[in-house]
Amino acid sequence: MKKAIILLSGGLDSATCGVIARDMGFEIYALSFSYGQRNAFELDAARGVALFLGAREHRVINIDLAAFGGSALFASSGVDVPKGDKAGGGGASGIPPTYVPARNTIFLSYALAWAEVLGMGQGADLCCDIFIGVNNVDYSGYPDCRPEYIAAFEKMANLATVAGVGGHKTTIHTPLMSLSKAEIIKIGVKAGLDYGMTRTCYDPDSQNGGACGVCDSCQIRKKGFEQAGVADPTAYFYG
Amino acid sequence: MKKAIILLSGGLDSATCGVIARDMGFEIYALSFSYGQRNAFELDAARGVALFLGAREHRVINIDLAAFGGSALFASSGVDVPKGDKAGGGGASGIPPTYVPARNTIFLSYALAWAEVLGMGQGADLCCDIFIGVNNVDYSGYPDCRPEYIAAFEKMANLATVAGVGGHKTTIHTPLMSLSKAEIIKIGVKAGLDYGMTRTCYDPDSQNGGACGVCDSCQIRKKGFEQAGVADPTAYFYG
Repeated sequence: MKKAIILLSGGLDSATCGVIARDMGFEIYALSFSYGQRNAFELDAARGVALFLGAREHRVINIDLAAFGGSALFASSGVDVPKGDKAGGGGASGIPPTYVPARNTIFLSYALAWAEVLGMGQGADLCCDIFIGVNNVDYSGYPDCRPEYIAAFEKMANLATVAGVGGHKTTIHTPLMSLSKAEIIKIGVKAGLDYGMTRTCYDPDSQNGGACGVCDSCQIRKKGFEQAGVADPTAYFYG
Repeated sequence: MKKAIILLSGGLDSATCGVIARDMGFEIYALSFSYGQRNAFELDAARGVALFLGAREHRVINIDLAAFGGSALFASSGVDVPKGDKAGGGGASGIPPTYVPARNTIFLSYALAWAEVLGMGQGADLCCDIFIGVNNVDYSGYPDCRPEYIAAFEKMANLATVAGVGGHKTTIHTPLMSLSKAEIIKIGVKAGLDYGMTRTCYDPDSQNGGACGVCDSCQIRKKGFEQAGVADPTAYFYG
């Protein structure tokens, strides 16, 4: 059974990405990161999703991004998460304030390290497959969610590792890249994924672990369920 | 004064790389990593070198590579470091056993994150300059020490970040890429660098922090001083 590493945040997108990889027949190695973000509460969700996917292993890596500061996604940054009509998905308006510097580059680099240790893309294992739930529709303002970024990372990865030296191939799979949130939700529902176990909110209730319902991420999620015609299983504590 | 991030291990190469950046007129932001390696003793050296360079800031980031295992460079791996005639610098013989998976990719990714937080390559600051002391002469068996890897990382970096989106330029400087160890040492000595403050050994004496003198890295270092005709300030506890 071919191995794949899935970057699993515990959110809606990465869970769907994991289901797609599982249904492609991959043995799942789930990789999550703890980086002092407000949405550390997603990690509990990631554990549940990894179990649901039947992951062979699930590693949670502590990373030190907060040492650099600079983003509203860091719990310790003192920067407010934009709410209501101040929230924006990026796009033509520029870089969203919730952008975390070089985040996907760091996440994918760790995935590459684990893949190499697992022997992926070496010897008889011809390919190294990594899945990431990036999306260029809802998050078009994030530079590291663009197809040209992923292509460049893949090229770099093929030069960075033992796998590349052996002439084998690293593939960064981005099955959600061009899908709307509604399309993503429909795929997950069809595959039996209970989105009630996923968590997406940028600014969750620290007491009850609930989603706010008004941050950028919650708004995109709500709209996705509406447009998919699927009941939203999320409990929101505002609006 | 233009900022540059210098990846500083506390070893001979990265210290020389730092001196070159300083003498090019950059304001130095030194970045080191603690990753459970046998050569954690290098970090004390890195602090000394950062002071010598007059670094504006020096950050030490804890990273979790050991969670993946797989290299003799991890203190907890239980893998022996090759000694004497078992040691090899890589090259035609393949990947050295001391290779750490995806290490430079992870290090450079963190540098990219810090650069973005520092505002490098944004607004009036047109360039983002990162220095890494990789060398393709002594370490030709390491895939992530090759010029084509660095070029691919640079291209990816220009797509990954706010700097890239603004059309500004990230440059990964590798001034040591094609130099012999003797040439590197001559540059440092000329610039007033005391190599006695640097540490390179893969398998240091945990009691006294001394260098072994027989590992791959010590052998390359000794030979470099011999060939440069410079007295080696290192105290070796074997051979």
